[in-house]
Amino acid sequence: MTPLEVEAYLHEHIPITDHMGVRAVRSDAMGVILSAPLEPNINHRSTVFGGSCASVAMLAAWSIVLLRVREAGLDARIVIQRGAMDYRRPIDEAFSAACAAPDEAIWSRFLLALRRGRPARIELTAEVTSAGVVVATFEGTYAAIPTLGPTARTAV
Amino acid sequence: MTPLEVEAYLHEHIPITDHMGVRAVRSDAMGVILSAPLEPNINHRSTVFGGSCASVAMLAAWSIVLLRVREAGLDARIVIQRGAMDYRRPIDEAFSAACAAPDEAIWSRFLLALRRGRPARIELTAEVTSAGVVVATFEGTYAAIPTLGPTARTAV
Repeated sequence: MTPLEVEAYLHEHIPITDHMGVRAVRSDAMGVILSAPLEPNINHRSTVFGGSCASVAMLAAWSIVLLRVREAGLDARIVIQRGAMDYRRPIDEAFSAACAAPDEAIWSRFLLALRRGRPARIELTAEVTSAGVVVATFEGTYAAIPTLGPTARTAV
Repeated sequence: MTPLEVEAYLHEHIPITDHMGVRAVRSDAMGVILSAPLEPNINHRSTVFGGSCASVAMLAAWSIVLLRVREAGLDARIVIQRGAMDYRRPIDEAFSAACAAPDEAIWSRFLLALRRGRPARIELTAEVTSAGVVVATFEGTYAAIPTLGPTARTAV
């Protein structure tokens, strides 16, 4: 999935991401970077609302799982089980969340479970930056449940 | 602050909460309950997007701090420092997040720090329910930084 495809997928299926102005900056086997502008996500301190920051971070991590599962030709429902945000400083302009692809050994185990028709679980981290500075970090646990349908069924 | 005042405050100052359809169901010294409908927060599994669920939970906890700080006649900037969501099951209709007021001994220490002009920190939990079932839980750490301005300055 190209960045434009990831972006279109998010906007179509999770409409609030369109309202938040979420853009996909990068999406490949190495990782996913999503960005969002300040304005639709503003709070009255003129900084980014913590809920928007958390949303973009959890979507970056979710997108790398979606992308990698599809790339492997598998079909799974991907759900977040746990997410933790650590807010380090206020975000007063556009921001982006980068989730690096998981370690290959971990990913191989994840795919193996799915291929055997078993649920798989993976932990991912994302880093939120703004103006070149790390402003927040995210840790999330995602589960993928194999499905038999013709298209990927996913949720975040 | 009445529920209508809390709701108006959120919609005015954090515009995405209006788009999410956030409503204040209860807001008094005992706690804050916020609710939101499925539709604006939907994902393509026709369940609630995890980011919307996290947003409503963190706002419920933030609102009780705002309400109690104002009630005490104090002025502080209230920021979230850390937030963790545990998602237990998909949410397939309207949902609400309830944050009970903190224990009075903990709250007294929090206010005492603020009254002395020092930053104060508090941990709060919120429970997200839908159709009478607990669907997610939230734990957040909030900091309040005393300000000297004429009105409360707060951020989430």
